[in-house]
Amino acid sequence: MLINRRVFRVEWGQCDPANIVFYPQYLMWCDACTSALLERMGGTAIELYAKHGVVGVPLVDVHVRFFIPSSYGDEVVAESGVSQWGRSSLTIHHRLLKQGALAVECSEKRVWAAPVPGQPGKIHGVPIPDEIRQFLSTPA
Amino acid sequence: MLINRRVFRVEWGQCDPANIVFYPQYLMWCDACTSALLERMGGTAIELYAKHGVVGVPLVDVHVRFFIPSSYGDEVVAESGVSQWGRSSLTIHHRLLKQGALAVECSEKRVWAAPVPGQPGKIHGVPIPDEIRQFLSTPA
Amino acid sequence: MLINRRVFRVEWGQCDPANIVFYPQYLMWCDACTSALLERMGGTAIELYAKHGVVGVPLVDVHVRFFIPSSYGDEVVAESGVSQWGRSSLTIHHRLLKQGALAVECSEKRVWAAPVPGQPGKIHGVPIPDEIRQFLSTPA
Amino acid sequence: MLINRRVFRVEWGQCDPANIVFYPQYLMWCDACTSALLERMGGTAIELYAKHGVVGVPLVDVHVRFFIPSSYGDEVVAESGVSQWGRSSLTIHHRLLKQGALAVECSEKRVWAAPVPGQPGKIHGVPIPDEIRQFLSTPA
Repeated sequence: MLINRRVFRVEWGQCDPANIVFYPQYLMWCDACTSALLERMGGTAIELYAKHGVVGVPLVDVHVRFFIPSSYGDEVVAESGVSQWGRSSLTIHHRLLKQGALAVECSEKRVWAAPVPGQPGKIHGVPIPDEIRQFLSTPA
Repeated sequence: MLINRRVFRVEWGQCDPANIVFYPQYLMWCDACTSALLERMGGTAIELYAKHGVVGVPLVDVHVRFFIPSSYGDEVVAESGVSQWGRSSLTIHHRLLKQGALAVECSEKRVWAAPVPGQPGKIHGVPIPDEIRQFLSTPA
Repeated sequence: MLINRRVFRVEWGQCDPANIVFYPQYLMWCDACTSALLERMGGTAIELYAKHGVVGVPLVDVHVRFFIPSSYGDEVVAESGVSQWGRSSLTIHHRLLKQGALAVECSEKRVWAAPVPGQPGKIHGVPIPDEIRQFLSTPA
Repeated sequence: MLINRRVFRVEWGQCDPANIVFYPQYLMWCDACTSALLERMGGTAIELYAKHGVVGVPLVDVHVRFFIPSSYGDEVVAESGVSQWGRSSLTIHHRLLKQGALAVECSEKRVWAAPVPGQPGKIHGVPIPDEIRQFLSTPA
């Protein structure tokens, strides 16, 4: 699979009074990593969605495990790739590393979602195009 | 002027490693207080904007002064009202109190902004309707 | 079990460009709900930890499922209780409701953690006191 | 003066339903830029504070002006430097640029603060060391 890599630096305001990263912050990073992974296809995620007539990739399930805390000044390296494919769903797996060790692991299950014709405001999963499946399945 | 009052409880994740509120959090509260003030007219802020053909009240200037820090578990009371009116601008003044003492003071200058006809994506200030000016100028 | 209930109002700044709650925000609410649940025992969570000689309840695992999106102005009601007990771990289950329907479901597995004697900076799980187990297991 | 430069990429979750950066986010960036500026002296900001016996640089006043909005996918370049020195205060001026044009301007007035001897929990401004003043006043 294609692995996208991003580096984050833990900022003061991202830590709680115990001086460890407040955990929703990890999900903010994972969400940004998913966008960055999709953008490897070119353009922004919004442009990709527009091109394929979808509204985005809404999240249906997220599972996070925390192994090592990180603190202000630490560097966190995220490695993200699609670990599982459904017909209209995909699971993005994020490994967040601190000095090379697995600190946090996150799986986001998302749906490739388009408007339901004739039902304004409704969306449903639609088949993920083969070109996306292939691109994200192929190591860079 | 009409003063709207909101109460916030300082959460663990809103504090930094010094166990004081990370300062952008105050602006999140002030933004929510501005919405709440406008909603005293009825409906959500979005509905109010739609009714008057504006896109919202974008911020042009904000000035904040910090007097007393707050920590996890503290209660912060915000009192918000329009302190100054221009033709198409308004300044919302927020006083954030901790146990009755002024902890943070914030002034947000915002513009009553509508799309520029014939120029997609462009907005400009338009006159604030008298009914809004009068409503927000009158004590409850 | 004891169920604690909190009500949140979705603010403008908690929503993303699709005008739905940006998902890490749900975790911020859940974290605050866990504190609020523990505080039903009296005092702040920090005071509770100090009384029992622990450093807190660090998260080891979180699983979230998303059923219905929420938007600016919506009211979200969270119902939180301990759904599972280990010797030194507890799982807090949060049900977030929108107009009575289950919108988001979140399980946080946390550890009742104390410093390891003689090893500064190290923490480990220690047995959860019976009084806490009983209090949080008993409906109000 | 020494100017430190940081580049931010606007993420999806940092934007509001109007698809512009939710304004408290700018302050998060400015706070991180202040840390980064201080860290040009070597070590983390926390290490710098410890070395000089201060608790940090608490904010007393912040003034922000907004000229151009930014949206998901935009790149924001921040240039930060100390624009004014008091005996125990310093004002950090941040210029946030979008495609070279000034988008947001922010001034943070902060105090070089140490514990008051014999009064636990109290802090007060103390003189800023000359070495810091000189280092941050000298262009790189």
